Amino acid sequence: MQRGSNLERLGDYNQAVILEGIRLAPEGISRVELAEETKLSPQTVSNVVRRLLDDGMVREDRTIINGPGKPRTVLQLENNRLLGVGIHLDPGVMTLVAVNLAGEKVAEESRPIPVGSQNEIIREITDAVNVLIRSNRHKRANYVGVGIAAPGPIDVENGRLINPPLLNGWKGIELVGPLSKSLRMPVTLAKDTVAMTIAEQWIGGGQGHNNFIFTYVGSGIGVGMVIDGQVVHGVSGNAGEIGHFVVGETGVECGVCGRSDCVASTLDRTFLLGLAKEGGVDLGMSEEDIAADPNAALGRLAEIAREGDEAAKKIILMVAERLGSALGTLVSVMDLDTVFVGGHTWNDVSEFVLEPVAAVINRHFLGAGSHAVTVQNTALGTSVGAMGGACLILDSHISPRASSLLLR
Amino acid sequence: MQRGSNLERLGDYNQAVILEGIRLAPEGISRVELAEETKLSPQTVSNVVRRLLDDGMVREDRTIINGPGKPRTVLQLENNRLLGVGIHLDPGVMTLVAVNLAGEKVAEESRPIPVGSQNEIIREITDAVNVLIRSNRHKRANYVGVGIAAPGPIDVENGRLINPPLLNGWKGIELVGPLSKSLRMPVTLAKDTVAMTIAEQWIGGGQGHNNFIFTYVGSGIGVGMVIDGQVVHGVSGNAGEIGHFVVGETGVECGVCGRSDCVASTLDRTFLLGLAKEGGVDLGMSEEDIAADPNAALGRLAEIAREGDEAAKKIILMVAERLGSALGTLVSVMDLDTVFVGGHTWNDVSEFVLEPVAAVINRHFLGAGSHAVTVQNTALGTSVGAMGGACLILDSHISPRASSLLLR
Repeated sequence: MQRGSNLERLGDYNQAVILEGIRLAPEGISRVELAEETKLSPQTVSNVVRRLLDDGMVREDRTIINGPGKPRTVLQLENNRLLGVGIHLDPGVMTLVAVNLAGEKVAEESRPIPVGSQNEIIREITDAVNVLIRSNRHKRANYVGVGIAAPGPIDVENGRLINPPLLNGWKGIELVGPLSKSLRMPVTLAKDTVAMTIAEQWIGGGQGHNNFIFTYVGSGIGVGMVIDGQVVHGVSGNAGEIGHFVVGETGVECGVCGRSDCVASTLDRTFLLGLAKEGGVDLGMSEEDIAADPNAALGRLAEIAREGDEAAKKIILMVAERLGSALGTLVSVMDLDTVFVGGHTWNDVSEFVLEPVAAVINRHFLGAGSHAVTVQNTALGTSVGAMGGACLILDSHISPRASSLLLR
Repeated sequence: MQRGSNLERLGDYNQAVILEGIRLAPEGISRVELAEETKLSPQTVSNVVRRLLDDGMVREDRTIINGPGKPRTVLQLENNRLLGVGIHLDPGVMTLVAVNLAGEKVAEESRPIPVGSQNEIIREITDAVNVLIRSNRHKRANYVGVGIAAPGPIDVENGRLINPPLLNGWKGIELVGPLSKSLRMPVTLAKDTVAMTIAEQWIGGGQGHNNFIFTYVGSGIGVGMVIDGQVVHGVSGNAGEIGHFVVGETGVECGVCGRSDCVASTLDRTFLLGLAKEGGVDLGMSEEDIAADPNAALGRLAEIAREGDEAAKKIILMVAERLGSALGTLVSVMDLDTVFVGGHTWNDVSEFVLEPVAAVINRHFLGAGSHAVTVQNTALGTSVGAMGGACLILDSHISPRASSLLLR
C-alpha cells in the first residue's frame, strides 16, 4: 500500500526545495524569486530561510535595488557548510574526492585499488578517506558521509559488491557496514553509472533536465537514466546495462553475455585492432608492441583517426554507428530527449564522433514526430566516478525528492 | 527548479492514499489497519475517512470482533460512486467500456473505427460515449471523464494523434479539446501501451508491484514500464517502443524502422508464413487462401503449433526467443524483476510460449546475481486497451502519486 505523508515530512521537503533553489543560483537569489519558482508562499519561504540562516547553510549576501520598491536581499549558499567524500572503484585505481555543496572539488586523492582480505581492503579505504579529509581545511564534522561508485553488479541491500568482472579479488566484499563503522560516518553505495548520473544531474549539464540519459564509454559501456527528475536505480540498484544491446556481428565473443553482436563486443580491443590491421591502418607500432599494450594501440588508432586517417576514421565511425544504434533504441523505448556522453574512451574521439552519434540516435529515434534528441558531451571531467560518489551522498542528504515526502 | 508542497496538497494526497488503501482491500479494511499500512496517524485516518463517508466514496460495511478489545468497523469502497469511460482506438475497431472504482466493467460498446473529417470523427465518438453511458444504470454525474488509449505517436500537449501508421485518415486528428467540449467532461489521451500498463497497475497483476514491464503482443508489439510505482510516459507521452530492438535477421524490411533485424520484422506475417512454407508446415489452406487472409493463416499456424506440430512449434519458439531477447535486454537496462505479457497474438500461443520466453529473458538478464525475473500472463482480458483508457482517467482523478504532492 502507498504510504501517506505528514507535516514533518512536508517541512523537511520544503526546506530541501529551497536549499536546492539557492544552490542552483550561484549568483544569488532573493526570497521573492524563491517563492515564485517553488510556488511556495512567501511566509513559508521566509520561515525556511530563517532556519537555513540559523544553521549556517546559507548567508545573506548583498542587497539588490532593482527599480522602485523594497530592496531585495540576495541569498547565497555557504558552499563549504557541508561536504561529501566520493570514492570511485575502478580497475587499477581508486579515486577519492571531497566535494562541497556547490559541487566544487576541494581535495582529491588517488591510490592503487586495494587488494587483500575484506579487512585489509576496509583498512586501506578508511586510511585513504582519513588522509583526504585531513588534507584540506574543512572540519571532519562538516562531512555528511561517503558515497561509493562501484562497478556492478552490486548488492545494495547488504552494501557489498557481488562479482565485479574487472575487480580481481573483490567478489562479495562488504563495504557499507564495515566502512561506516570504521569511519563513523554514513556510507552509501551505488553502481558507478548510477552515481555518475547523479553527478550529471547535480553539477553537470543535467541540472534542470528532468529526463535524460548519461552514457559512459570507457573500458566498458554503461548508462544512467533520469525519468521525471528521479534517477533510475532499478530494483536491485543495478540499472544501466546497455552493453549487451544487439547492434551487429563482430566475430568476438563478449565475455559477459556470451554473444558476439552486442555493443560491448564492438568495443572489444581484439575486434577493433583486427579491423585496423585489415584496413591497413598504420599504427606505427610493431605487432609485438600492439600485443603487449593493446590500450596504447587503441589510443593510437583514435589519434590517427583524429588526425584525419580515413581508414582509422571508418573504424571509429562504425563504432559510433553501433553505439548510436543502442542509444537510439533506448531513447525510443524511454521517450527521452537528452543524452550526455563521457568517459575516457569517448573523450579520445568525441571531437569527430559526437555529431555522427547524434545523427544515428536521431535516425533510430521513433518519436521523431514529437521531438528531437539532443546529444552533448558531459561537462564532468575524468573524475566523474568519484564526483558521482560525492554527489550520491550529498544528494541523499539534502536533495528534495518527491518520494522523500512519504512516511517511512 | 523543484516545486514545493503545502498543506492542501498534503491533505488531498493523504485522502487519495486512504481511498486507494480501501480500494485495494475488496474484503474491507479497518481504520487501524489503514493507519498501520499508510503510516498515517490514527487521527488523520479518522478525519479522512469521515470525509470519504460524507462524500459517499466509502461505506461502513460491518463490524468485526477479533479477540478482545473494541470491535472494528470495516470500510468498503462504494464501487459505483465514480466511473470512467475508456476508449481504445485500434485498427478496424473502436472499443468503449465503462469501468467503476473497483475496476469492474459495467458496460461495453464496439464500433467500426470512425472514418471521415475531424468533425465527423468527433461526432461519432461523442455518440458512442453517450450511448455507452445511457446503456447502464449509472448516472452521468458519476462519470469522472473519458480516457483514450491510442496508437502512437501521440501529441499529448495538443491532445491529438500525430501519424498512427495503422489508422488510416487519422493523421493529426485532435481528440482531447473537441471531445471534452462536445461531451462536457474531462478527456485525457495516452499511448495505448501506456494506458494498458496503468490498467495492469490498477486492476491487474501489477497491483502492489512498484517495478514491472507490461508487454503487448498483437498486430504490433509495445511495452509499458512502471518504475518506483510511477508509469513511464516519456517526455512526449510516447514511451514503450520496443518493436525496433535488434534481435536477428529476417530478410523482411520493417515498415517503421526500415531495418530487417528488429522484433517487429520478426512478427511480420510475410516472414512467418514464409518460414512455415519452408518448414513444410501444412496449414490446410491453399496458397490463394493464405494470400487472401494471412491473419487466418497465422492463427492456423499457432493452432497447429498448439496441437504439437514440431515444425510449427519451431517457428513460434524462434519468435519467443527473439521476443525474450528484446525483453531481456530491456529488463537488464532498467533492472526490473517482473514482466507481464498479453495481447491477441500472445494469447493464441502463450500456453507453450510463456515458459520459453521466461527462460530467454532470464538467460539474457544481466543482474542474475541479484534477483530473477518473473514472467506472467496478464490477467486483463482482450479489452485491455479500453480498460486502460478507463483506468487512465480514474487514475488521474483519484490515485495517490508522490508527484501530485507538488505545487503546480
